[in-house]
Amino acid sequence: MSSLASLKNHQVRLAKRPVGLPTSDVWQFTEEAVADPGPGGIVVKTLALSIDPAMRGWMNEGKSYIPPVELGAVMRAGGIGRIVLSHNENYKEGDIVIGGLDVQEYSSFPEKSIKRSGVTKVDLRVGSETQWLNVLGMPGMTAYFGLMDIGQPNLTKAGETVVVSGAAGAVGQTVGQLAKIKGCRVVGIAGGPEKCNWVVNELGFDACIDYKTGSVKDGLKQHCPEGVDVYFDNVGGEILDTVLTRINKKARIIICGAISQYNNTTAVNGPKNYLSLLVNRARMEGMVVFDYADRYHLAVAEMAGYLKQGKMKSKEDVVSGIQKFPEALNMLFEGKNFGKLVLRVASE
Amino acid sequence: MSSLASLKNHQVRLAKRPVGLPTSDVWQFTEEAVADPGPGGIVVKTLALSIDPAMRGWMNEGKSYIPPVELGAVMRAGGIGRIVLSHNENYKEGDIVIGGLDVQEYSSFPEKSIKRSGVTKVDLRVGSETQWLNVLGMPGMTAYFGLMDIGQPNLTKAGETVVVSGAAGAVGQTVGQLAKIKGCRVVGIAGGPEKCNWVVNELGFDACIDYKTGSVKDGLKQHCPEGVDVYFDNVGGEILDTVLTRINKKARIIICGAISQYNNTTAVNGPKNYLSLLVNRARMEGMVVFDYADRYHLAVAEMAGYLKQGKMKSKEDVVSGIQKFPEALNMLFEGKNFGKLVLRVASE
Repeated sequence: MSSLASLKNHQVRLAKRPVGLPTSDVWQFTEEAVADPGPGGIVVKTLALSIDPAMRGWMNEGKSYIPPVELGAVMRAGGIGRIVLSHNENYKEGDIVIGGLDVQEYSSFPEKSIKRSGVTKVDLRVGSETQWLNVLGMPGMTAYFGLMDIGQPNLTKAGETVVVSGAAGAVGQTVGQLAKIKGCRVVGIAGGPEKCNWVVNELGFDACIDYKTGSVKDGLKQHCPEGVDVYFDNVGGEILDTVLTRINKKARIIICGAISQYNNTTAVNGPKNYLSLLVNRARMEGMVVFDYADRYHLAVAEMAGYLKQGKMKSKEDVVSGIQKFPEALNMLFEGKNFGKLVLRVASE
Repeated sequence: MSSLASLKNHQVRLAKRPVGLPTSDVWQFTEEAVADPGPGGIVVKTLALSIDPAMRGWMNEGKSYIPPVELGAVMRAGGIGRIVLSHNENYKEGDIVIGGLDVQEYSSFPEKSIKRSGVTKVDLRVGSETQWLNVLGMPGMTAYFGLMDIGQPNLTKAGETVVVSGAAGAVGQTVGQLAKIKGCRVVGIAGGPEKCNWVVNELGFDACIDYKTGSVKDGLKQHCPEGVDVYFDNVGGEILDTVLTRINKKARIIICGAISQYNNTTAVNGPKNYLSLLVNRARMEGMVVFDYADRYHLAVAEMAGYLKQGKMKSKEDVVSGIQKFPEALNMLFEGKNFGKLVLRVASE
């Protein structure tokens, strides 16, 4: 490679904390030289970044499952990249890795931060670059462990009903397909006929409820005649409340996210039907994918098999150019993405 | 006994469905002869009735874990009584039983409804009449299985912190004492200094937060310096919301009731901090005591041992006279009872 000094690194930094939907003044674009990672370190060129609803939470001050992004810091992200410089015998130039690359063109990792940042070599014969950010990446892992470990579909009882919101999104598409593979009846909830048709016709869900044009309550009555055994919630708000009215005894609700609430400028709307948990002896449980890191390799192997066999499909919605990061992020909250949202930063 | 025909049975019936706190016109007092239970049946004279928050739910129309009390029917209740007539060789006159006696002086059980109504012989040497409605009855069973099966305090990890609301109430007092016996740190939440002092000084809780005079948030900070591992919720509303801000990773919240919400005339306040479940990978789970009926005898044996050894105390708040039922019930919702609320119907 050319020397580090000659590389310009463009970055997107958090300039101020947003109130509600992030506005353009929240972001600062900077240009810097690429830092020398020092002995044992590596430099990764960003190929593509994963754009996730969880990013909105990282921008807020206050205690959460990971510390907030500091003001002035490069925005946190996960991504896939190519090693362009290595002082470490475990990594060689040209290796493709996923990990915490942040919203910048080059990430410089001192030796001690390589593992801490989750930098892991991946094989593009197993999945494409964007699949490694989707089914084989965080969204896929979230879907897998959320459904299997928290949702615990009863695989001995034919046809437990699994409902998933954000069904055409990154996590939802994999939750639904995996639940179908495991033998469940699967009903998605998504916004608009295009997403709903895709979920049913391409991914094989049993049904999909369009929350934008119809009543979720009526849809659940129609498509979940036996009630809901597992609800994988990515959205919170009114949809969570409605599903709570249709759960079965001993139902499991996975709280994976609440995208409808992330940009609230007032308090989150709590699920006013939560006493349905009592009546139905049901459970609502949160999950954070990082807890399952030591089992990612098992889930990746299983999902890669499904991809290869054509049992699982994946859809990515790719936006190009690091300068498009702010608008790409907001697409999530406006429901504009169709499939896993990916920001393409460099083509090679 | 004297003939059935000579016995007058006074009853309290549900005349209309309440809106908010039940008003006196919700109730109808009736006087009838005692029905003949027929071959194999028994007649039980009510000694005392258990007055429970759950009763409020039974008065509402709509699907719940048991059907609502029908309009015109005798109000449902659990109680303790003495068999005054038996056509069944398994029961003899003079036997003391607990079960679904309803709000009336005599309950007549045809043979086939004896078991279905949960009629079970009890031994007054094991516990007093009112203890059989408290620690050894439904509230005690609710406390036992809610804490142990749903709360699952980690007994190998010294000093997990258990918080219980309604700490001086029927369920709360037993939850806290049982958690202490199991080795947990226990913090109660109750209304007023008298209840709080009793919970700490008599029952041995580590602390009790008075929600009427102080801040629950400050109290939790002070008394749960290591956070909250198990929260046994009897009240819902703002207290649930506040506890949600102090839970630990992998915390368990038992949804046993929501007395603060039962008389709402608008929607229940959902827990607006429920996303703390996500951040903390925590769980909120409902429980209904009837699910554990096949293990009641094990819990009763264990709790009776604690009573005998003086490790567990019980407090009952006794109101006398069946005609006092309406005001006794409302005492619960106004926080006026101190200990398990019992309606004494007959002395022998």
